[in-house]
Amino acid sequence: MTIARRTEDEDMQVNNAERLSASGTREALIRRLRDCLPADCVIENSESQRPYECDALTIYRDLPLAVVLPQNVQQVEDVLRICHTLDVPVVARGAGTGLCAGAMPHPEGVLLALGKLDRILEIDPLARTARVEPGVSNLSISEAAARHGLYYAPDPSSQVACSIGGNVSENSGGVHCLKYGLTVHNILAMNILTVAGEALAIGSLGLDSPGYDLMALFTGSEGLLGIVTEVTVRLLPAPEIARVVMAGFDSIDAAGNAVGAVIAAGIIPAGLEMMDRLAVRAAEDFAHAGYPRDAAAILLCEMDGTREEVAEHVDRVVQLFRELGATSLTVSADEHQRALLWKGRKSAFPAVGRIAPDYYCMDGTIPRGQVAYVLNEIYRLSKQYGLPVANVFHAGDGNLHPLILFDASDPEQVRQAESFGADILDLSVRVGGCLTGEHGVGVEKLRKMPSQFSPHELIQFEDIKYAFDPALNLNPGKGIPILKRCQEYRALPDRHRHD
Amino acid sequence: MTIARRTEDEDMQVNNAERLSASGTREALIRRLRDCLPADCVIENSESQRPYECDALTIYRDLPLAVVLPQNVQQVEDVLRICHTLDVPVVARGAGTGLCAGAMPHPEGVLLALGKLDRILEIDPLARTARVEPGVSNLSISEAAARHGLYYAPDPSSQVACSIGGNVSENSGGVHCLKYGLTVHNILAMNILTVAGEALAIGSLGLDSPGYDLMALFTGSEGLLGIVTEVTVRLLPAPEIARVVMAGFDSIDAAGNAVGAVIAAGIIPAGLEMMDRLAVRAAEDFAHAGYPRDAAAILLCEMDGTREEVAEHVDRVVQLFRELGATSLTVSADEHQRALLWKGRKSAFPAVGRIAPDYYCMDGTIPRGQVAYVLNEIYRLSKQYGLPVANVFHAGDGNLHPLILFDASDPEQVRQAESFGADILDLSVRVGGCLTGEHGVGVEKLRKMPSQFSPHELIQFEDIKYAFDPALNLNPGKGIPILKRCQEYRALPDRHRHD
Repeated sequence: MTIARRTEDEDMQVNNAERLSASGTREALIRRLRDCLPADCVIENSESQRPYECDALTIYRDLPLAVVLPQNVQQVEDVLRICHTLDVPVVARGAGTGLCAGAMPHPEGVLLALGKLDRILEIDPLARTARVEPGVSNLSISEAAARHGLYYAPDPSSQVACSIGGNVSENSGGVHCLKYGLTVHNILAMNILTVAGEALAIGSLGLDSPGYDLMALFTGSEGLLGIVTEVTVRLLPAPEIARVVMAGFDSIDAAGNAVGAVIAAGIIPAGLEMMDRLAVRAAEDFAHAGYPRDAAAILLCEMDGTREEVAEHVDRVVQLFRELGATSLTVSADEHQRALLWKGRKSAFPAVGRIAPDYYCMDGTIPRGQVAYVLNEIYRLSKQYGLPVANVFHAGDGNLHPLILFDASDPEQVRQAESFGADILDLSVRVGGCLTGEHGVGVEKLRKMPSQFSPHELIQFEDIKYAFDPALNLNPGKGIPILKRCQEYRALPDRHRHD
Repeated sequence: MTIARRTEDEDMQVNNAERLSASGTREALIRRLRDCLPADCVIENSESQRPYECDALTIYRDLPLAVVLPQNVQQVEDVLRICHTLDVPVVARGAGTGLCAGAMPHPEGVLLALGKLDRILEIDPLARTARVEPGVSNLSISEAAARHGLYYAPDPSSQVACSIGGNVSENSGGVHCLKYGLTVHNILAMNILTVAGEALAIGSLGLDSPGYDLMALFTGSEGLLGIVTEVTVRLLPAPEIARVVMAGFDSIDAAGNAVGAVIAAGIIPAGLEMMDRLAVRAAEDFAHAGYPRDAAAILLCEMDGTREEVAEHVDRVVQLFRELGATSLTVSADEHQRALLWKGRKSAFPAVGRIAPDYYCMDGTIPRGQVAYVLNEIYRLSKQYGLPVANVFHAGDGNLHPLILFDASDPEQVRQAESFGADILDLSVRVGGCLTGEHGVGVEKLRKMPSQFSPHELIQFEDIKYAFDPALNLNPGKGIPILKRCQEYRALPDRHRHD
């Protein structure tokens, strides 16, 4: 087999020959983009670009040279080829619900918004798969699969809005990932375009395939290795029944012990969530879910499966919680009550948003056995920084989401909140956990990566980045620190911060 | 953070300076290895090397410059550093049970046998993890975890002997991977040494971690990216009960339909295996499991979980099989009968080995809906080549294991068997499946990779290889075809074949 292969040197020559002066780049770029895309799919006006200036971590903002909204895969390929030729950075964006500034535009680049690629291409009930475009929302896959009694398991809190392409980029989890896994455990195959616009088909409909596991490598790679243009997800049969047990505890330690006891009993709940007092009160005031306002913490433990299995596990969990000192116990009697108990948890973020001008959501992961110790340390830091903190998290898999309350109009409070957040991440790493459970690194945690990884490990990440994107044009300045070619590296200018 | 980084150029200079003449390499290598390892851990004598000349795919054989048997991680690191300095290839070997010649020695390299790193370092029943060295056998993990009511799910047929390091390298599956997944779904973290002897800690005890998913990338990478020195595996609670339903069918099509029907009914069996007539008869003569010798095919469908759940699923599966024309039906009444029914399946390979001098086990994966079509095509090819074939496979996930019967003492039959095998792989790819389910590419399927992957995809694999191993010293000539630097590539000499 003979194939033409560009070497990196040839790339450089092409790029140098075609590289345009800084002043001319934007014009040439816009002209070429307009040749390939409909007029309303290239946005160059600053005001019209505003909706794209940040993702859900709004303290990081910037505007790109252009926002493009391709309508099909061919147009995505055209955009990538143009940017590759002109050596222009490309930042992909799904629904913009990310929490690490991973979709923040690059000021010298193109923001590639994939929301118009929103078709469900095929549902195969026998193979139990759905083939979808990247802009399809997470929830709409389950809605489309429901008539076959199937659903897509990962359920981030933002599932009404967030896109499957974004889920792939961040390897999103959700309340049910303790039992059903993250995005990477629920997808089978993908079509990818490289930074040069070349198509790769990765993964397979079987359990395994030859060659390296590019699909797992891509999942969670934060848009640094390529652009996802199609995803085949695994669908699961909807469980016959689900019931949730809510228990209140009068101390963080008691609630933390109860988490460990459920797991040690050999039960794998569909979800096992914990909320502390401040979060419980905010959520109860907002959702009227029937949460005990006087508890130091509550646990929500959901079991799903066949009626017999769920009944047995609910009994065992109730018994365990009682033995471990639960001060209140509620078991959902029907779907209405189950939905109400979850409503409090699922609206916890906006509920906390009502009691402070702004909140900063962290995403460390810790060993289950460290839950009580880490929460008590977070309370100590909260006093030290003078900023309240509400804790809402996936206790079953040790994924913390402390919400630090602050006022973004006060630059000093912004700095304090960031410093408090950094301390929580250091704490997570120190107890044997990690920097992020499901929200990604993005801009937010980039400087923290060396606290988790050794220089050898960071260089290995970097070498993988070069293996896909030698000119560092895909989502530069995010995800992994680049140590090797600092001079050439398109670091984000300081103006990316709005404070 | 300042770190010293070798560039590739510097590597080359070092290597050129230290590279020894071909005649001197072996002596210098042995001398340095003996400086670091006990005398009985460096094997240079051809006769003593014989046990290491091949893995379980015995038609590919060769002898290395030296076999080394390090006793600890420091010695593994020493070996890697020595080989890196001398620019000598390194092939890692676990228990040698692999089926794609992935552990066949390189004639100019070192065979790094990891069997002495066989300690179970820690079992944590609360976190449900076991931390083990790479030479630990698959089954011994479950044996050690049994006192906590836990086990390690992936169960290759060779689980008594095969090592966890080898399982990681091939991403091994087993009878139960339909429900519980492959190795990659059951491991959490690893320690790795790079080709240069640098330590990397990859994965995490949480569900996700920042940076690229190096753990999934390593899993199934066939020893091409680094050497695994420690693995943390996930343990599962042992199910309360398991029962197996065995059904005979009078045609391949009827059995194939029944596989689809179980899945479509929303049942995820713990295992769903199919054997055709030749395999059934060989297994029955060997194991006396009670298999119906007159059936065209049998299915073994195991359910596990709580008593209630299993009872319900067994009833539904029996009902389904009856409706779809099963000619015989047996449900295991107790653990003894269950073990007996599985004994036939688990001994199918040696049983087939009794009815022919040699067999060649293929490993294609196909969509479940194509099972009957593909089996009928395999029978047609069997007639065409004049070689009998027995089919034993993981029907639930479409992973075929046709066993081609032949006589290895007849070079013409060896060629025919290889050609027949290649046709089966082409067929698997043509119906939308892939070249390998769990046995890997190794030497065996290397030339077939372009039938599955596009040139862009193969080059992307190659770029990843360079990102870890720029001098191509780790297990060269296996796993992925190298297109870019053919001249420099250490292709395996023709003498690797013993025919």
